[in-house]
Amino acid sequence: MSEAALDLQARAAKLDARDELRAKRAEFVLDDTVYLDGNSLGALPANVPERVADVISRQWGALRIRSWDESGWWTAPERIGDRIAPLVGAGRGQIVVGDSTSVNVFKALVAAVRIARGAGDGHPDESGGGHPDGGRDEIVVDATTFPTDGYIAQSAARLTGCRLIPVAPADVPGVLGERTAAVLLNHADYRTGRLHDLPGLTAAVHAAGALVVWDLCHTAGALPVGLDEHGVDLAVGCTYKYLNGGPGSPAYLYVRREVQDRFDSPLPGWNSHAEPFGMRPEFEAAAGAVRGRVGTPDILSMLALEAALDVWDGVEIDAVRTKSLALTDFFLRCVEAYVPEGRVEPVTPRAHAERGSQVALRCEGAGDVMKRLIEQGVVGDYRAPDVLRFGFTPLYVSFADAERAARVLARTLD
Amino acid sequence: MSEAALDLQARAAKLDARDELRAKRAEFVLDDTVYLDGNSLGALPANVPERVADVISRQWGALRIRSWDESGWWTAPERIGDRIAPLVGAGRGQIVVGDSTSVNVFKALVAAVRIARGAGDGHPDESGGGHPDGGRDEIVVDATTFPTDGYIAQSAARLTGCRLIPVAPADVPGVLGERTAAVLLNHADYRTGRLHDLPGLTAAVHAAGALVVWDLCHTAGALPVGLDEHGVDLAVGCTYKYLNGGPGSPAYLYVRREVQDRFDSPLPGWNSHAEPFGMRPEFEAAAGAVRGRVGTPDILSMLALEAALDVWDGVEIDAVRTKSLALTDFFLRCVEAYVPEGRVEPVTPRAHAERGSQVALRCEGAGDVMKRLIEQGVVGDYRAPDVLRFGFTPLYVSFADAERAARVLARTLD
Repeated sequence: MSEAALDLQARAAKLDARDELRAKRAEFVLDDTVYLDGNSLGALPANVPERVADVISRQWGALRIRSWDESGWWTAPERIGDRIAPLVGAGRGQIVVGDSTSVNVFKALVAAVRIARGAGDGHPDESGGGHPDGGRDEIVVDATTFPTDGYIAQSAARLTGCRLIPVAPADVPGVLGERTAAVLLNHADYRTGRLHDLPGLTAAVHAAGALVVWDLCHTAGALPVGLDEHGVDLAVGCTYKYLNGGPGSPAYLYVRREVQDRFDSPLPGWNSHAEPFGMRPEFEAAAGAVRGRVGTPDILSMLALEAALDVWDGVEIDAVRTKSLALTDFFLRCVEAYVPEGRVEPVTPRAHAERGSQVALRCEGAGDVMKRLIEQGVVGDYRAPDVLRFGFTPLYVSFADAERAARVLARTLD
Repeated sequence: MSEAALDLQARAAKLDARDELRAKRAEFVLDDTVYLDGNSLGALPANVPERVADVISRQWGALRIRSWDESGWWTAPERIGDRIAPLVGAGRGQIVVGDSTSVNVFKALVAAVRIARGAGDGHPDESGGGHPDGGRDEIVVDATTFPTDGYIAQSAARLTGCRLIPVAPADVPGVLGERTAAVLLNHADYRTGRLHDLPGLTAAVHAAGALVVWDLCHTAGALPVGLDEHGVDLAVGCTYKYLNGGPGSPAYLYVRREVQDRFDSPLPGWNSHAEPFGMRPEFEAAAGAVRGRVGTPDILSMLALEAALDVWDGVEIDAVRTKSLALTDFFLRCVEAYVPEGRVEPVTPRAHAERGSQVALRCEGAGDVMKRLIEQGVVGDYRAPDVLRFGFTPLYVSFADAERAARVLARTLD
């Protein structure tokens, strides 16, 4: 073991000893793997198996249909939304859980376009076809986005008669104007881990009279988002990364209180009706964020997520951010110390203000390198064509994990 | 106990003894309740708890991210679709599981309109706005539908520049014409239990050059559907009724092989991409039914459903239909024998060809009557304003259940 390694291991031990979140690790099911893929699939919170067993055997098996009322199934989407709310800086009554991120992006974008065009102002909506010059007929989308957002944005544009304008987030202010209806942005880049300027970009979009939709998949649960504070209109996110909800657990939709009355969903299912059991042929949207619901909520996955959110009890998101930055700083330091010069190139920004909770390293043969890391018990993931991605979940990743990951990486590249 | 009751109980015992599906009852978790609400939420199959426990603890908890490949998570939507296929008369490769019924109705209807208009024939699509006279710009929808289908059809019409035409299923042939793009129909009416003429209506829609979307929520798993045989274009259904997938379990989408190449989804998520992990900014639809997928599949609910489908091993859907008709016939006979004249009026057709797998009875004060039935261990449900609904799931409902339900109903109304 080199001296540098001994130093960094001692440093890791010190940082772990001081870590105010260290007790949280025991609330997860972990083994001796260094699990740095929580930005893809969060680890299993230890209380989930028992809770889901109860949902299945007692709530479904014994109470059956009565559980829609008696076990609180019917109100789960908004109840669990309120559990996520403090993690993303939202007051109550603005988030509903359900559907996938892609489906929520679709709801949010189409609704944003409709709001931007104004309700009842005589603007020909998509149903009338054709839009006069000067109407808001442009959707701006992050050109570096996780692809699904781009595909869905293209579909929303096609269906609302808009033109899609893909640009890098930094270039968004330059393309905004009186034709901009809505802007879809990622809070953090899924590949590089770069954190985008949510307050600044939101203000720029608003200055142009448009609405912004933020995708929080790679930030919710890893750092403060401040949806209410920064005036975000709409936001979506998944719950299986830093929120540890389980594989494919339901996503969520945030609809800012001020725009809820104008939120006109392209997916108006019976669950978003003002009186769902009235079984009326005419649609009348429910008040509040509930109008973001669509069909029957997926109860097993949803209640697994609800149990998973218990690990956030007593956790301040600022403390999570502090540890996240310390972890990624420390990992970068270990990589610099251990990995031979020139073998990897960090693409995640050094500046804290521009960093999410992952470290992406460009590396020749990244796909094979990741396979070998996984064989040695260090699990990150590979993103084509040449990126090694390491996610740092502050609730269960330790500084010792970060040091070991860098050490195994160096050995693998040697 | 009246003589009529003794006779009918003896008859029930005889019918149960002869029931070739009677062994299936032991594969469900049941108690002494007469559960006639399986058309709302199917009972729990006994193998589900252990299977889901394994998915959570081993697949998620221990294998974590590796399970997307190693535990077959990624291919679950189409694999489970192929398990449902024989129950609805579909060959392999035409069904994917995921999302809610409402979301699938949206995909199917918008895609149907696009196919009807023809790809690449210069017809101005929704993005161009405006449709020339003679274009296909009408969506016909069952006016008696479960409301969510109507709301979603309205939204699909608005977004594709179509006019929505709600009519009773029997009147559909009369409104079809060269402007008809797509028709959305329910195989069975959720309220009355009336079975609609799927082969005849499908043929009528095709004769008009339009596409048909069938909602199978109230028939899949209860009777033969024959999707391939009758040339149905698109179909959707839930899995939590007669398929016993659990509360809010994912729905499915059938896309007939012949129209798959032209299936142009309004929800093109990364899961429907030809190369989902290529992370390419341009969308290119996958081949086959997979292009009906959208976002990350909801694994816990999906694998609970997969386990639930094991109860169908060795079951022929024709045998299910035979028992279903025998059960509903017998229940109606018991109701006639026990319930005082004029207190209830069956709204479910007597003719087998027009009957699904439920019996709906119009009854004064139906809401209160159902509450009192439930207190006495007979669980059906109430549909506003005056319908008592009793669902008969042939895999676990016995003739003795049917007799007891009618007897308790008579006592309650007495």
